[in-house]
Amino acid sequence: MSSIAPSSARQVRLMARTGVLSGPTANLASGFVQANLAVLPRDLAYDFLLFCQRNPKPCPLLGVSEPGATSIPDLGDDLDIRTDVPRYRVWKKGVLVQELQDVTEIWREDLVTFALGCSFSFEEALLAAGVPVRHIEEGRNVPMFRSSIETTPSGVFSGPLVVSMRPMLPEQAIKAVQITGRFPSVHGAPIHLGDPETIGVNDLATPDYGDAVTIRPGEIPVFWACGVTPQAAIVRARPDFSITHAPGHMLLTDILNNRLSI
Amino acid sequence: MSSIAPSSARQVRLMARTGVLSGPTANLASGFVQANLAVLPRDLAYDFLLFCQRNPKPCPLLGVSEPGATSIPDLGDDLDIRTDVPRYRVWKKGVLVQELQDVTEIWREDLVTFALGCSFSFEEALLAAGVPVRHIEEGRNVPMFRSSIETTPSGVFSGPLVVSMRPMLPEQAIKAVQITGRFPSVHGAPIHLGDPETIGVNDLATPDYGDAVTIRPGEIPVFWACGVTPQAAIVRARPDFSITHAPGHMLLTDILNNRLSI
Repeated sequence: MSSIAPSSARQVRLMARTGVLSGPTANLASGFVQANLAVLPRDLAYDFLLFCQRNPKPCPLLGVSEPGATSIPDLGDDLDIRTDVPRYRVWKKGVLVQELQDVTEIWREDLVTFALGCSFSFEEALLAAGVPVRHIEEGRNVPMFRSSIETTPSGVFSGPLVVSMRPMLPEQAIKAVQITGRFPSVHGAPIHLGDPETIGVNDLATPDYGDAVTIRPGEIPVFWACGVTPQAAIVRARPDFSITHAPGHMLLTDILNNRLSI
Repeated sequence: MSSIAPSSARQVRLMARTGVLSGPTANLASGFVQANLAVLPRDLAYDFLLFCQRNPKPCPLLGVSEPGATSIPDLGDDLDIRTDVPRYRVWKKGVLVQELQDVTEIWREDLVTFALGCSFSFEEALLAAGVPVRHIEEGRNVPMFRSSIETTPSGVFSGPLVVSMRPMLPEQAIKAVQITGRFPSVHGAPIHLGDPETIGVNDLATPDYGDAVTIRPGEIPVFWACGVTPQAAIVRARPDFSITHAPGHMLLTDILNNRLSI
């Protein structure tokens, strides 16, 4: 996908819709907010919405569809939830049953779509401020860990807070706190920095999700609440049916990253 | 009530619970967050929760109870939703049918309680920063107006954004924007300042709720999203049954105002 760098979110959606794009969305349509996707039956929507409200750092809601609706107008005029993500995962009772590029065939009238903020937005702000982001430098996925911090449950949704980790020098960590604190709708300020064992992370070299990255002398690990948290909560809740994006294959929205800054 | 100034939120709750306090809570337990209360049947809870998520400035959620629960532990250990507000309003199909000091007798197992932030918190911060608040100086209720701005609807809940108005000098308004912007969970920064007609407010001397206040030469009106917005949306939705606090008779929580600052 390295040769493709469309200038707008709408173009990326169109590429996904027409099957041209089936790969990850990192670095595509830079400047635009990318969203995690969670699609659930209406009868679980209240519990999940309340789970997001109770755990806003891992579950920062950008938009919620009407039941059965295939669009979320606030996120993009032409947006079609069924086709505009390059790769979907379909889950039944907490088991991954299918990966699809288009979920039109399996769409149901009772589905509610939740779009949640993702760290791509604040990483762009970090890079713009000269704070290096190691996994981007190293061309890897961000390392993620199940922490010992529990989310506040809501109905069937519960489980550990999953955190992403970015190593940096203390002075960079201070800057990163200030920068990401201005972006509460994409996870906000870190939830921890320094000793990983404080939050139940015992080995930074073996992440639970994503890839390990180099930690250089003098650097400390900085941990942010991660959008894998709600996905893991959904898997754990074992709903009869649900759809998510495949990791790294996000929904491009027309919202500008800059607009999320407070 | 002027002789009563209990030092903690818990004491105020206890006074309300035992019937000692039946009046407004302004200036009681200073430093503690006071909350608007909306109690709705479970079958409307999703629509209302989504209404709050879509309209965070007028509807800043501090906590949501489990269905039928009489407590919201995050807001206070001993808190009893049925007794701890000095005065409740009971609504049937959008009509006010009763004012009670205790709703234990009419409590139902399907009720969900929503506690929402209120402007008392940011007014305390304004006063602490030397920004005068006119209606407090004049011993009145804050003037509130139905604006021409529409909320984003959710299910049966919709209607105009209700705004509160505080007149101040431009330099004070600038300070007020900075201060209240740090308190997103109690309405946050203003939604408008200057010409009232821009937001459909035609006469500052005749508020739709509360009392008119003096506007001095050189002052401009500054408008904040107001917690009456969700109350008006509930009245408009005409649910079979709902309970709210009576205006000014708030739920005292154990959360400190300072803790809401970002």
